[in-house]
Amino acid sequence: MNDLYQKDFLLTSEKSDKALKTILELALLLKSLRDQNISPRVFDTGLAMSVFRDKSTRTRYSFASAANMLGLTVQDLDEQKSQIAHGETVRETANMISFLTDIIGIRDDMFLGEGNKYMREVGEALDEGYQQGVLPSRPGIINLQCDRDHPTQSLADLLHLEQYFGSLEALKGKKIVMSWAYSPSYGKPLSVPQGIIALMSRFGMNIELAYPDGYELIPEIVEIAKANSENNGGTFSISHSMSDAVKEADIVYPKSWAPLQVMKQRTELLKAGDTKGLDDLEKTCLAQNAKHKNWEYDARKMSLTKNGDALYMHCLPADISGVSCEAGEVSAEVFEKYRIQTYKQAGYKPYIIAAMMLANKFRDSVSVLSKIVDRNLPRL
Amino acid sequence: MNDLYQKDFLLTSEKSDKALKTILELALLLKSLRDQNISPRVFDTGLAMSVFRDKSTRTRYSFASAANMLGLTVQDLDEQKSQIAHGETVRETANMISFLTDIIGIRDDMFLGEGNKYMREVGEALDEGYQQGVLPSRPGIINLQCDRDHPTQSLADLLHLEQYFGSLEALKGKKIVMSWAYSPSYGKPLSVPQGIIALMSRFGMNIELAYPDGYELIPEIVEIAKANSENNGGTFSISHSMSDAVKEADIVYPKSWAPLQVMKQRTELLKAGDTKGLDDLEKTCLAQNAKHKNWEYDARKMSLTKNGDALYMHCLPADISGVSCEAGEVSAEVFEKYRIQTYKQAGYKPYIIAAMMLANKFRDSVSVLSKIVDRNLPRL
Amino acid sequence: MNDLYQKDFLLTSEKSDKALKTILELALLLKSLRDQNISPRVFDTGLAMSVFRDKSTRTRYSFASAANMLGLTVQDLDEQKSQIAHGETVRETANMISFLTDIIGIRDDMFLGEGNKYMREVGEALDEGYQQGVLPSRPGIINLQCDRDHPTQSLADLLHLEQYFGSLEALKGKKIVMSWAYSPSYGKPLSVPQGIIALMSRFGMNIELAYPDGYELIPEIVEIAKANSENNGGTFSISHSMSDAVKEADIVYPKSWAPLQVMKQRTELLKAGDTKGLDDLEKTCLAQNAKHKNWEYDARKMSLTKNGDALYMHCLPADISGVSCEAGEVSAEVFEKYRIQTYKQAGYKPYIIAAMMLANKFRDSVSVLSKIVDRNLPRL
Repeated sequence: MNDLYQKDFLLTSEKSDKALKTILELALLLKSLRDQNISPRVFDTGLAMSVFRDKSTRTRYSFASAANMLGLTVQDLDEQKSQIAHGETVRETANMISFLTDIIGIRDDMFLGEGNKYMREVGEALDEGYQQGVLPSRPGIINLQCDRDHPTQSLADLLHLEQYFGSLEALKGKKIVMSWAYSPSYGKPLSVPQGIIALMSRFGMNIELAYPDGYELIPEIVEIAKANSENNGGTFSISHSMSDAVKEADIVYPKSWAPLQVMKQRTELLKAGDTKGLDDLEKTCLAQNAKHKNWEYDARKMSLTKNGDALYMHCLPADISGVSCEAGEVSAEVFEKYRIQTYKQAGYKPYIIAAMMLANKFRDSVSVLSKIVDRNLPRL
Repeated sequence: MNDLYQKDFLLTSEKSDKALKTILELALLLKSLRDQNISPRVFDTGLAMSVFRDKSTRTRYSFASAANMLGLTVQDLDEQKSQIAHGETVRETANMISFLTDIIGIRDDMFLGEGNKYMREVGEALDEGYQQGVLPSRPGIINLQCDRDHPTQSLADLLHLEQYFGSLEALKGKKIVMSWAYSPSYGKPLSVPQGIIALMSRFGMNIELAYPDGYELIPEIVEIAKANSENNGGTFSISHSMSDAVKEADIVYPKSWAPLQVMKQRTELLKAGDTKGLDDLEKTCLAQNAKHKNWEYDARKMSLTKNGDALYMHCLPADISGVSCEAGEVSAEVFEKYRIQTYKQAGYKPYIIAAMMLANKFRDSVSVLSKIVDRNLPRL
Repeated sequence: MNDLYQKDFLLTSEKSDKALKTILELALLLKSLRDQNISPRVFDTGLAMSVFRDKSTRTRYSFASAANMLGLTVQDLDEQKSQIAHGETVRETANMISFLTDIIGIRDDMFLGEGNKYMREVGEALDEGYQQGVLPSRPGIINLQCDRDHPTQSLADLLHLEQYFGSLEALKGKKIVMSWAYSPSYGKPLSVPQGIIALMSRFGMNIELAYPDGYELIPEIVEIAKANSENNGGTFSISHSMSDAVKEADIVYPKSWAPLQVMKQRTELLKAGDTKGLDDLEKTCLAQNAKHKNWEYDARKMSLTKNGDALYMHCLPADISGVSCEAGEVSAEVFEKYRIQTYKQAGYKPYIIAAMMLANKFRDSVSVLSKIVDRNLPRL
């Protein structure tokens, strides 16, 4: 079964292993076409809508460059960021921005319990619109980060790991530490760590999730990761010390996120329009964070990893101590050592998104790319 | 005479019946090309400037998708919204954004007596720029809503009616009610009702314009509609009760707009920079609106229409009672019944705009589209 | 040596005469292709990033239309305007917006000592990214105005002069007056006058730089202009009276700029985050400007020029007395006489930028354009 063609890409956990491997394969192919100056354009006109309900430079660029690669033009929808829309507003807007749209990319990561739900509501509206003859085709939705998952990030991360260690097979038995880290900023989404544990657990890796008390992830997603590990020959454990967690790690991903309870309260306060409550919550949360400044990934902790040089990962921008902030997620020394690697990690994202677009629109996307290689149209 | 080729599209009342029918025909053809996955791209590079002096999601999308369909790239001009520009500022800006521009779409609907005037001023500046050798070609202007008319909306509405009732011929003798409706929001332009009465009166329809005392439209446009009705075998009447107006109607278009006097005062206050006066005017206007909450189109009123199921129309977004506001233009029940129809109505707009672009740029636009059918270039 | 191919275009003073002439030649060729309805598209997909750290309508349009002409899509980077970024932030962002980027256009003209430096920092980050395999190719940077130079403006101005007087050769011995002029607005960059004196002095023109005491330009750039004049058979002088300066001038370029000391202080205050200090400085600066209201270019001053009709130039928008402000850089009468000429002057900019893009990406850009003439692909 092809679970990519004409299917939204909302959660990696909904996709088969075959589907995920297809995305990785397509992304690599697209990257090699770029290196050979071959244009992979498959659209002669067409629109990719971007709906960002949170600020973004990197993902915005990745989405725009993926669209451009395939011949689509990006059109941005200006959405009010602090408003949770439902019902007729969503149904109507979804149709109004889809009359000639091929792909819709949505980032909605600020409010727990809302982002992924919103994407599904948009999807249902599009289904109806297409069935009722409002839309000439059903635009595909790509999750550009929600409250539950960040699939374009986690798949770019997986592709980076595949390239770094040589193959997906080589990832089996590797220890990856997904660790909370201190940050002076507030309200970072849980989607990156959740995306990492849910995805990497499917490739036989040994997952260690580390965070201070109170910073747990959505329990249901942790259960998915545990089950994946069992089914794929890996292990899954949780610890509450970064130093303990990183021992003998092959990969360390230190990244801040907000406490689950704070994220829940925030959604409630927002729904109630309680501005004062939101301000107070921010102060409480920052004070809570500040108790865990020792959750910085530094040279000492790195020395505890396998051969002292576990691959450091980050989705960027990182809070680098003494560089982008006084005290942060990672020491300047450690970051600098892996800086270029983090850039490479980020560089896979445009291709991952383009692969998702391609797989959504073509039943046999791999053979479409073969034809593109044969066509051999120079991009420049 | 071809009054589309190299002519701005500013008011439907300036265009011949033949011109309007050409736009409808081209729009339908473009829509059918989309359904057949044929690319109608006629530009290899080119720019469509959009100048929005008022917020817009739907028209912005329609303009962007029309441009994309034909191979043009949209470039937005950031204009200060609260400023009425004249003279050298307009002349200069018009030229500065036109060196490589094919089409300029302008929305300027906020200030009575200003929007259409502004478009003509831009047009004159472009004429001069082209004659003086500043511009290699004369960009065509498309009115995306002004203080007098909203031609891309009214023509999309007409195309919807043609498709719904089977032909333009079938519209003869149909009763259409353009009715004011209550809205809790302030300062909605008069251009939609004005556009509807000025256009539909040309196709032999029986127009009933309904509004509470004080909500009349620009008298000159009402005169145009009356004359059209006389010349085309229809009738035109005005009433001051929604319930009376909708009796035996084939089509009901309930839509809020601001009182004419308020719109006039607003323009004056704005020119004088009287912020306090503008705030006071808003309060007065909302209070005035609130006296007419019974101007809601509901199931009871619908039951009075022909067979109790007149086609409900709206340019969207509608103020739906209990859905998007407490009390509004239409009851949830009635809106839901015709919801998909309103989406279809909106769906014609991108094709209407693309048809206007095409007809502005090609002397024989219909034969250009025939060649495109023959070319048979797959879009995807 | 080809100092355009794969080289950033940051300052005209870094480029050879041959390079500058190539840009002018390419720009003219591109303009004539447009007039013949031939598409010069050389990219099949590709991105041009625009980074505007200051507001812009004209240059933004010019960059967008240049990109479109060649087949590139513009993607804007939203940058915080009031922040001077350095180090890792710049390195990272430069790479994140470059994975699939061909050209980066940057405007950063607000802070003395910062704009050009920032562009070079971006360039170094791109060099590293390309060398380290992060980027598949090295995007070229085009300076869209910095604290030192405004090369797309000065080269468009030069092309205008070449066309107006018939040839570059004809410019030899012509007297051009680059004069400060009064403006009621604050903090205009020094890059236009600096760009003009540094460039025009290379073509044997007699440069007269005029400004009231305190409005000198960056000394180092004045030295460059002086040396150019000596090496190219022209003269260079400075005066402190507009009336004296314009005598027997062939060309007069009256344009306001901020005092050098104010621009220096402003950068320091900004670095210190001293908002109060910045406000005070603005007041001081406006008061200082107001002492020189007689620095308006009017009919009387124009009568002193060669035959009383020296070519008036301006980069637009000009502060026109009685039109765009009470008292400004130029009288309405003089401006009106040369208004169309200023529009033509501005009209070269899109082609200059496109020429820079082309020359950056193709080793033999002139022969690429010849092939395009042979290809003869209609744009419309």
